[in-house]
Amino acid sequence: MNLAEQFNHVFYPRSVAVLGATVNPAKPGFLCFSNVLEGGFQGRVYPVNPGLEEAFGLKAYPSVRDIPGEVDLAVIVIPAEASVSAVEECAAKGVKAAIMITSGFSEAGTEIGSDLQDRIRDIAKRAGMRIIGPNTIGLVNPEIRLNATFHAGLAAGRAGNVAIATQSGGMCSYILQALTSHNVGVSKAMGLGNRCELDFDDVLAYFGEDEKTEVIAIYVEGLEQPRRLMSVARQVVKRKPIIALKGARSEELNRATLSHTGALAGRYELYQAAFTQAGIIAVDDITELVDRAKALALQVPSAGNRVALLSATAGLSIMMADRCHELGLKLAEFSPATWHRLRQLLSELYPVDNPVDLSWAIGDSDVSREVLDAVMRDSGVDAIAACIGGAGMTLSFARAAIETVREHKKPMTVCLGPLSAAVAEMVALFEGNGIPTYPLPERAVTGLSALVRYGEILRAARAG
Amino acid sequence: MNLAEQFNHVFYPRSVAVLGATVNPAKPGFLCFSNVLEGGFQGRVYPVNPGLEEAFGLKAYPSVRDIPGEVDLAVIVIPAEASVSAVEECAAKGVKAAIMITSGFSEAGTEIGSDLQDRIRDIAKRAGMRIIGPNTIGLVNPEIRLNATFHAGLAAGRAGNVAIATQSGGMCSYILQALTSHNVGVSKAMGLGNRCELDFDDVLAYFGEDEKTEVIAIYVEGLEQPRRLMSVARQVVKRKPIIALKGARSEELNRATLSHTGALAGRYELYQAAFTQAGIIAVDDITELVDRAKALALQVPSAGNRVALLSATAGLSIMMADRCHELGLKLAEFSPATWHRLRQLLSELYPVDNPVDLSWAIGDSDVSREVLDAVMRDSGVDAIAACIGGAGMTLSFARAAIETVREHKKPMTVCLGPLSAAVAEMVALFEGNGIPTYPLPERAVTGLSALVRYGEILRAARAG
Repeated sequence: MNLAEQFNHVFYPRSVAVLGATVNPAKPGFLCFSNVLEGGFQGRVYPVNPGLEEAFGLKAYPSVRDIPGEVDLAVIVIPAEASVSAVEECAAKGVKAAIMITSGFSEAGTEIGSDLQDRIRDIAKRAGMRIIGPNTIGLVNPEIRLNATFHAGLAAGRAGNVAIATQSGGMCSYILQALTSHNVGVSKAMGLGNRCELDFDDVLAYFGEDEKTEVIAIYVEGLEQPRRLMSVARQVVKRKPIIALKGARSEELNRATLSHTGALAGRYELYQAAFTQAGIIAVDDITELVDRAKALALQVPSAGNRVALLSATAGLSIMMADRCHELGLKLAEFSPATWHRLRQLLSELYPVDNPVDLSWAIGDSDVSREVLDAVMRDSGVDAIAACIGGAGMTLSFARAAIETVREHKKPMTVCLGPLSAAVAEMVALFEGNGIPTYPLPERAVTGLSALVRYGEILRAARAG
Repeated sequence: MNLAEQFNHVFYPRSVAVLGATVNPAKPGFLCFSNVLEGGFQGRVYPVNPGLEEAFGLKAYPSVRDIPGEVDLAVIVIPAEASVSAVEECAAKGVKAAIMITSGFSEAGTEIGSDLQDRIRDIAKRAGMRIIGPNTIGLVNPEIRLNATFHAGLAAGRAGNVAIATQSGGMCSYILQALTSHNVGVSKAMGLGNRCELDFDDVLAYFGEDEKTEVIAIYVEGLEQPRRLMSVARQVVKRKPIIALKGARSEELNRATLSHTGALAGRYELYQAAFTQAGIIAVDDITELVDRAKALALQVPSAGNRVALLSATAGLSIMMADRCHELGLKLAEFSPATWHRLRQLLSELYPVDNPVDLSWAIGDSDVSREVLDAVMRDSGVDAIAACIGGAGMTLSFARAAIETVREHKKPMTVCLGPLSAAVAEMVALFEGNGIPTYPLPERAVTGLSALVRYGEILRAARAG
């Protein structure tokens, strides 16, 4: 079975068994079981628990071996001590993959924990069964409404093209929810936990092949063999961008990480250098991850780093220009032809410059379209960020922006201001037409910078 | 008339005249006029326009001098060329203050623009009339639902305790909306524009006295005499924190700023040093401004920088710990007594440490209360940030947090995860009880860091 086939059993199981399923709402086994059921997953679901006859109208089985049909995916939510025999039974049953939710393994820092983890890994390896975890949140596939985690509601969002793999389960859930709350759809999400068997390199290689995935976001704390991840990444980034958030960036935090997923975090500088070399886009926090992923999910990479800024009021342009400077983007210099055209279009009250001050003209579709056309046609402009003042003016500008971006195919991001009902409508209009929107001017530039950076990564990969 | 009396006419006018009011919705004069009316302002409103008989059922006057009653505040929305005579008429009428919305003054970079600005300033000075602007958005006072700007809806938010003064009008509107969308109420907001007469030092001194204002946020691009602002700030920060966002932080942006509010931006390093010396909290973007303002609006300053972190999953604690490190906050070391108490309360699967991993215990009110009590009672802990995993567990933790914060009076911020309907209810519960909430773990720490920093500023001010 090749990697794609293996992972298809993991992310597109026809049947899921929940070992430790229970009807007691205080137990993690209840959450995992009810989340698989309530998410809307259409495959077969088998509760497994020797003390249970049935749960929510489904017949329960004392062991996974008693299940009559095939089992693609097992979710194991039982105490660590009992997990070895559970994994043995899964292997004997021919289960393709098991998610080990429970903690108490290598992250506990005890000999018995490490020993248990080694044993389940060995059983899985012998049987050719994939193990996700242990000590993990599980996985989510919104496309088939599969929520195989203990966190409710995670498969409820719109399916999209961003895949997530994280070392920490909490971060998996947070990143997924943060993307969803910014209208960025997720293709697949997986918490890797202690990575006793399945590790970043495998899941990255799969996301690289997965046709539903166009952007990959990972959260890394510490890796024993970072080179394995980097070497797969170097290939994947030729086709899709990878964004990486590194946790435990300061030395003193190795302590916290060690007590978490059982790995030393390692020096951040080394990771940064390795990320850059592998063509991975590094980010410092969840907001930055979301802002960059959103731009990459919707827009084309930029041919260069020369940016034109447009706004209705100069203060907002200044915020954008400051962020451009901080992220290494250059303010484009307009050609004489562009300058003359803008001079004719804009109020005499304002000098023609980059940032372009549209002022009241932002409320005029025709003027906005002409200004955008002039700017995008300029061969000295690679990418555009715009910031719009009031919701009242947004619709005219939206029409102009959508048309000109479609024609010129240069990447553009737009700031529409803090969310309100009126702004939400405009967000849907822009993003429905492939233009990512942001609530604050500096964040529109952060998004744009990911398109510039990924353009550079692609050119370097082709040159090298 | 002292400063407080002057500013009371500005922010609490009994009557507002709009010069340039019109019924043509395409004109800025329409927006200014309808915003004063629609905001719900209860004072008298006079449209002034020689070409108008009445507007929205209100009698219009050809000149401000024809208005029968007193006029506290004039909003002037007419072309720059006509503004001198309009200001003269306001002065003759005894108008207390005028907002000059229109541009075409010193920011235009023309001799005629600068000359017009000098003339209106001189007229105002002679008459003892305050001038806001020119080239400004105007002002907002949510307490009396006064929106004297061209941007609709700005007075609609809940009145609160954060005052805003900005050089750029667009930034005034954005900061106000960003605060409102994070449930932070605003006391007053003013765009200063070209600052031909009324400048930061005046408005800061007023906000320092204003009993509705407890936190002050300013956006500065460039000042001719930064020392005037700093010297007022040094006094104000003894009573209320001031947060400053500096625009045009890179040298090359002086160009953009110059074409904006007519001032050179100046080197950022000099501003940073001056802000620090004056006890002003500097921020780099709007998100950071909002996060810090929210904490300062709801919580007490911290007695020190030793922070305890709590979460349900370690990955989220690591994100918080990384931000602590970046912002100069220390992870507190628990006393042996605290350590022993936590050891009894928490699962044996996790080592007792800071960050505290509450795991499933976060869903148990009694355990959460005991853990929080142990941590807050520790004299080595100055402040607490917590991050909660799933909405299902939040209510139990909320009850425990509200009680223990009330008892121990140590500052605390909480991350509740990306916004959803369920999270919004919890936000209201926490913030209704004075505990600021954030959608992401690193932002809860940014908020907390403002309380630590303001504590340091207060101690330095008292020592000096």
